Amino acid sequence: MNRQIAGCQPLKLALVSAMLFFGTLTHAQSDPLPSWNDTAPKKAIVEFVERVTTPGSADFVPPAERIATFDNDGTLWSEQPLYFQVLYIFDRIETLAPQHPEWKDKEPFASVLRGDRKSALSGGVKAILEMAMATHAGMSTEEFGRMVSEWLDSARHPTTGRRYTEMVYQPMLEVLAYLRANGFKTYIISGGGIEFMRPWAESVYGIPPEQVVGSSIKTKYEVRDGRPVLMRLPEMNFIDDKEGKPVGINQHIGRRPIMAFGNSDGDFQMLEWVTSGKGPHFGLLVHHTDGEREWAYDRESHIGRLDRGLDEGPDRGWTILDMAKDWKVVFPPGMK
Amino acid sequence: MNRQIAGCQPLKLALVSAMLFFGTLTHAQSDPLPSWNDTAPKKAIVEFVERVTTPGSADFVPPAERIATFDNDGTLWSEQPLYFQVLYIFDRIETLAPQHPEWKDKEPFASVLRGDRKSALSGGVKAILEMAMATHAGMSTEEFGRMVSEWLDSARHPTTGRRYTEMVYQPMLEVLAYLRANGFKTYIISGGGIEFMRPWAESVYGIPPEQVVGSSIKTKYEVRDGRPVLMRLPEMNFIDDKEGKPVGINQHIGRRPIMAFGNSDGDFQMLEWVTSGKGPHFGLLVHHTDGEREWAYDRESHIGRLDRGLDEGPDRGWTILDMAKDWKVVFPPGMK
Repeated sequence: MNRQIAGCQPLKLALVSAMLFFGTLTHAQSDPLPSWNDTAPKKAIVEFVERVTTPGSADFVPPAERIATFDNDGTLWSEQPLYFQVLYIFDRIETLAPQHPEWKDKEPFASVLRGDRKSALSGGVKAILEMAMATHAGMSTEEFGRMVSEWLDSARHPTTGRRYTEMVYQPMLEVLAYLRANGFKTYIISGGGIEFMRPWAESVYGIPPEQVVGSSIKTKYEVRDGRPVLMRLPEMNFIDDKEGKPVGINQHIGRRPIMAFGNSDGDFQMLEWVTSGKGPHFGLLVHHTDGEREWAYDRESHIGRLDRGLDEGPDRGWTILDMAKDWKVVFPPGMK
Repeated sequence: MNRQIAGCQPLKLALVSAMLFFGTLTHAQSDPLPSWNDTAPKKAIVEFVERVTTPGSADFVPPAERIATFDNDGTLWSEQPLYFQVLYIFDRIETLAPQHPEWKDKEPFASVLRGDRKSALSGGVKAILEMAMATHAGMSTEEFGRMVSEWLDSARHPTTGRRYTEMVYQPMLEVLAYLRANGFKTYIISGGGIEFMRPWAESVYGIPPEQVVGSSIKTKYEVRDGRPVLMRLPEMNFIDDKEGKPVGINQHIGRRPIMAFGNSDGDFQMLEWVTSGKGPHFGLLVHHTDGEREWAYDRESHIGRLDRGLDEGPDRGWTILDMAKDWKVVFPPGMK
């Protein structure tokens, strides 16, 4: 065959082109994580992925079992000064206020309408849930998805002025793409609302709706005027945080992931679950150390508190990422 | 380019070989459903798949949105004389009886132990749930999965003597493979237990655990002797039947499937939900008409009752499959 090819000029040209083409590809692929500095976390990710994807390696993992799970708030996008979904709730309360004159005298809504967000949140989880139910229920899943999309199109972050979907971490977008190029399925496992993330996770992260896991309220199937709808009810269904994360992973995925990425103690059990699997496994915590380009917070933060993870993570073999040191850029290029 | 190729004998040979090779493939693929008779249901399936996968067709559906959902009991495998999971429950009660002397005097367990399955079931759903909790909870998800696998290795169907996993429908295995070959993701949406199906759905149906949706009990994340486990609790979490099916579909998939396959009125809402989507859609109900090769039952059956679906299905554009008429074989070849 080789000799036959040697006598065929056009095919030789094609072969040379192909070799050049693939050579270029290989070269381009030699740095799959260009926004990462060449520090330990990047090396750990690349070393792990190469180990589990090399056929014949003792740690080879078949593609069907290559599952990687990512927290969202503080791991894939920012979460300060408040979870973006809470900012959505505040905006919705202001929008809906004319239809709810009673909110003027009813906490926590009254505080929101006075612009006093701190007081609105002083009621803790109970107050947040009350506001979530008032703004997230009473419509169909499709209507809710449309509302979230419209909000994301127009809303801007209070301190950076960016769109919320422009506050995703460029280095993590590269990890998501790198893992998928290596046969991984990438999942979101977030304490945030599952239906709040699905409308944009595919276009922003490349993660389809069936790979988004989050907290949820109950829905009810109804036929309204001959048209079936799933109505959102003001009743919690599942809280996908802390001990809930391994439960949500099992419910939706049904097998143990081999990689987990988080940033707060709310992700501790997810990392614990993933990194106690029998085969090769990898856990990473994003430590927010970058007060200049993003935010710096950990043990004392009211949002995304990271305390136990910092204490126990290293002994458990988890990679602790230092945002200021390990990332060349934080947000996608083209934005400041 | 063409003229250059024309002057190159080895390449011409390669091209001819390739054409012959692909020609053979095309011919082999010309009947993707060999166990189906050439009646209306087969034609409807093939016509639909070709329509939504032909680039440029007005009804073209991008691969990410090609989702097909299948009921399990009575749609992918048999469900007579009782759901196979209920037969598993009976077997477990007999196995566990020595550790539960109190069951001798306690219904419905006492009836099971006397071999009087009819009386055991006379308590309806309440009795079944009580027996399910006693046999499906109190162990980790991993232990439960192992127990189900061991049972399936040894148990035999009471009337056919076959393994339960050999009572799957060959024509439906072909549909699953045909859809996946055309870029579809295939899901199970079953009233049966999600963790009862996951241990074998991948090897038997080619459906990975993350694409199995079913009823579930609650689980709790715990660290036992330093080892994290998900313990199964005797408390219902979700019933994936009737109105629950669209809810389960939304919870796990997050977008509306374009094909749905069922066999009973428990699948009515799933088909209604799927076939009221805006784009192209397809619904099929398996009508069990084959008392010789399988079972014949519909409107009056205690299991897999099909009544409303027979009345309303045709007007809703659903395909009603007549098992006796439309399938050449029922179970995989090599078994009677």
